[in-house]
Amino acid sequence: MTAYDKLAAHIAEYHDLLCILNTLKWDMRTMMPASGASSRGRQLATLTRHAKSIFVSDDTARLLDAAENEVASADSDSYRARALRQSRDAYEIQRRIPSDLVARMAALGAESEAVWAKAKDENDFVSFKPYLSQMLALNIELADAIGYEDHPFDALILQFEPGMTAARLHRIFAELKAGILPLLERIVAVEAPLVVDLWEAEYDLAAQKQLCRELTALIGFDYDRGRLDSAPHPFEISFTRDDVRITTRYDANYLPMSLFAALHEAGHGLYEQNIAPKLTRTALTADFLGQYAVGGASYGAHEFSSRLWENQIGRSREFWRRHFGRLQAAFPQQMAAADAEYFYQAVNRVRPSLIRVEADEVTYNLHIMLRTEIEMALLEGAIAVDDLPDVWNAKIQEYLGLTPPDDRRGVLQDVHWSFGGFGNFPTYTIGNIMAAQVLAAAHKQMPDLAAQLADGDYQKLLTWLTENIYRHGRAYRADELLARVTGESLNTAALLAYLENKYSDLYGVN
Amino acid sequence: MTAYDKLAAHIAEYHDLLCILNTLKWDMRTMMPASGASSRGRQLATLTRHAKSIFVSDDTARLLDAAENEVASADSDSYRARALRQSRDAYEIQRRIPSDLVARMAALGAESEAVWAKAKDENDFVSFKPYLSQMLALNIELADAIGYEDHPFDALILQFEPGMTAARLHRIFAELKAGILPLLERIVAVEAPLVVDLWEAEYDLAAQKQLCRELTALIGFDYDRGRLDSAPHPFEISFTRDDVRITTRYDANYLPMSLFAALHEAGHGLYEQNIAPKLTRTALTADFLGQYAVGGASYGAHEFSSRLWENQIGRSREFWRRHFGRLQAAFPQQMAAADAEYFYQAVNRVRPSLIRVEADEVTYNLHIMLRTEIEMALLEGAIAVDDLPDVWNAKIQEYLGLTPPDDRRGVLQDVHWSFGGFGNFPTYTIGNIMAAQVLAAAHKQMPDLAAQLADGDYQKLLTWLTENIYRHGRAYRADELLARVTGESLNTAALLAYLENKYSDLYGVN
Repeated sequence: MTAYDKLAAHIAEYHDLLCILNTLKWDMRTMMPASGASSRGRQLATLTRHAKSIFVSDDTARLLDAAENEVASADSDSYRARALRQSRDAYEIQRRIPSDLVARMAALGAESEAVWAKAKDENDFVSFKPYLSQMLALNIELADAIGYEDHPFDALILQFEPGMTAARLHRIFAELKAGILPLLERIVAVEAPLVVDLWEAEYDLAAQKQLCRELTALIGFDYDRGRLDSAPHPFEISFTRDDVRITTRYDANYLPMSLFAALHEAGHGLYEQNIAPKLTRTALTADFLGQYAVGGASYGAHEFSSRLWENQIGRSREFWRRHFGRLQAAFPQQMAAADAEYFYQAVNRVRPSLIRVEADEVTYNLHIMLRTEIEMALLEGAIAVDDLPDVWNAKIQEYLGLTPPDDRRGVLQDVHWSFGGFGNFPTYTIGNIMAAQVLAAAHKQMPDLAAQLADGDYQKLLTWLTENIYRHGRAYRADELLARVTGESLNTAALLAYLENKYSDLYGVN
Repeated sequence: MTAYDKLAAHIAEYHDLLCILNTLKWDMRTMMPASGASSRGRQLATLTRHAKSIFVSDDTARLLDAAENEVASADSDSYRARALRQSRDAYEIQRRIPSDLVARMAALGAESEAVWAKAKDENDFVSFKPYLSQMLALNIELADAIGYEDHPFDALILQFEPGMTAARLHRIFAELKAGILPLLERIVAVEAPLVVDLWEAEYDLAAQKQLCRELTALIGFDYDRGRLDSAPHPFEISFTRDDVRITTRYDANYLPMSLFAALHEAGHGLYEQNIAPKLTRTALTADFLGQYAVGGASYGAHEFSSRLWENQIGRSREFWRRHFGRLQAAFPQQMAAADAEYFYQAVNRVRPSLIRVEADEVTYNLHIMLRTEIEMALLEGAIAVDDLPDVWNAKIQEYLGLTPPDDRRGVLQDVHWSFGGFGNFPTYTIGNIMAAQVLAAAHKQMPDLAAQLADGDYQKLLTWLTENIYRHGRAYRADELLARVTGESLNTAALLAYLENKYSDLYGVN
């Protein structure tokens, strides 16, 4: 056995434990009776601690040293070398984060999330404030422990998007705003309500489920290696590429909720299902820093796949031209007055709104920028937790021309800050940007792609994505992947062009 | 923190890992897509190994020693003292079992079970023979490692039923045969087929599921702390008393399959759900020897609860007098020609048959005796694996007057030997015996019980069982429990009286 093989065997067991944590989380969010929550919390805490003690151990240090000596001369671009570097990086960072800080964050997070939920219900920001202040302080401690050069946000986003920084995000956001705000202004000026509201009808839940299954299978989600369930907050999670679970949620009236959440999560699932089998149980199919078995290059890169299949494919005119018949077959009465074009318009309405998760493609990134800018300012100390409602309301007025009637629909709407997830929001926007860049590159490299998509043939795109992106798991950083696939670094041109083309056509505002 | 508290904290974490193993097994048998099997196998292997290394460790030894010194003076009948003794016993036995033997048994078991499945399909005992021979040899090694005085079977059954021995089983079996065989002879002499066969109709699966849920809730299964799913081989499993999962299986024609499997598994579930909360995460809600989070006093004691609710309650005339209306409401056409008495007779038909899992209450224990006697003879070397088909066929002819047309319906029918589960079969019969003794005691102590059961009120019985048995978890051995509840040791009188009363009445053979 080589030194690398010994490390790999050690890592494989750690990976098994991370997959088990995923299984526990999946069950908790889909199957577990409510009374099981407290036991499950303890089980998760115990296994998380064990997993961490196995990874951040003298064993790991010794095995890493030995493997590094052995692999030093090998090709630095090989999967082995990359797995080794990523294990080393995660090990060094994990070592710098005191166990005590992790425990305090976890303990506060559990309490804080409950307080937040109540505060949101009761529109009572004041009761949530002390928790948010403490959570902010702990995130500053965490950033200090991880280390950074310019901005504490750089340390926090490292957990989700290695290579991204506050400074780069500022530039990206400026470009996005310069493109999106004028487009939005043109759209808002002409928008007229649709004549028939499709979402007043009732859509049988079993038929919705069947349709979700059909459409996700159509784009290539492999049900022999996965399943679809329902969850109040849809998510995708995997326990290796051979067992990938996706979820969606159902609203009896609002059909798009289940369809697009299913396509979104299937987009995540396609990434996991198409990672090269040889990467199973390696550092290239897990986030060792976050102790999470996930196979994409980064959180943003994972979101690229979900956004691409949900929006660029699933909300395209071609998609519904091709598949509207399935909708009609499932819901003949509800769809009696609609056609493919009408449905396409109905699921692409642009409306400035207060709630991020209901936002359309044009306004969505504005919601993300607002949150990210506030997070950065909090970390810098440029604003105080006390000021948050005012800052939030001023920003959403600036970006979307709206004033929240209460904090529930303002600063209290998202769960993320309550459990301490600072640095995570921008990965959604990074995903949107990457999806546009990657799909543009795919069209360039495959001149027939548009015709295939119009034909309802998604196999060639899936094969291309697998070959160029999915199969590599986490071997390449998001930046490296983009450079390999598109020859570019992350930039907003493709996304802005996509939005401009699609929506200026849709709203006749060319 | 006292020394006992330190041990308890260590044990609690080990218990969490066992609950996690249960979660993985539940998912594997109910939800997992088939392709997930190989990853799941590795995850189970990794976590099982970690759990074992945490339990059989110097830490445990040190904590046990310290706690024993501290608790020595305390009440030896307390839960603490009992938890400590059980942890010590399991630790000492686990230590004696070489890890290497466990690994060889697991590896052979996985292969052997697959070979067995194929051999059963193809009615090919010869191909299974070498695997069974090796598995027998490993079980003899295991018995030697555990240690015994009289018979290797005594060491193996210790894993499931502490206190039981081959010698005691021989005496019990002799009594059972003396009572059951003559009763069976009288029944067989008069049995006439029913005029209408209820199982030619079709029973909608969703309606079956609803009925299973209703009936299990009626006897007290708490769906706020549990769920019902379907599984090809029904089972119950728990992840603490607050999360208890039961399963059943459905046959579109044969309604009793789902109903009685659900009542059976709910009977197991009632045990787990009614263990005292303070025993959660202690040695008194897990089998540390088998590394399995299960709360009953023994495997036989757990089976007592499932058999009691399935058979003595669920297959009683009173039960169906009370609830036949529910059946009729669910299946009005299928039940049009039946009434409560007719249904009662239909689900209590006695027929010597070749297949254990389809056997009625009268013949069931004969199937168990046959298997147990063969196991003992194999371990003694009194018979050879080569002789198994002949020995099997001779015994089933002796007990049931039948000759299997092939080994598939003979010696190859059960999975147990293929994965190495020697010593487990008699726990089913012990459960039947205990159920009769316990219910007889309940009737003696609660003169109103018969009236309450006839009234469909199961709460008082459940409360009595909880107070006398369930709440104690594994604190008492099955023997001790029986003595506390009935004043008797395990004996066949109550079971034989129950069978004689019920079936001589049913078949008019008084």
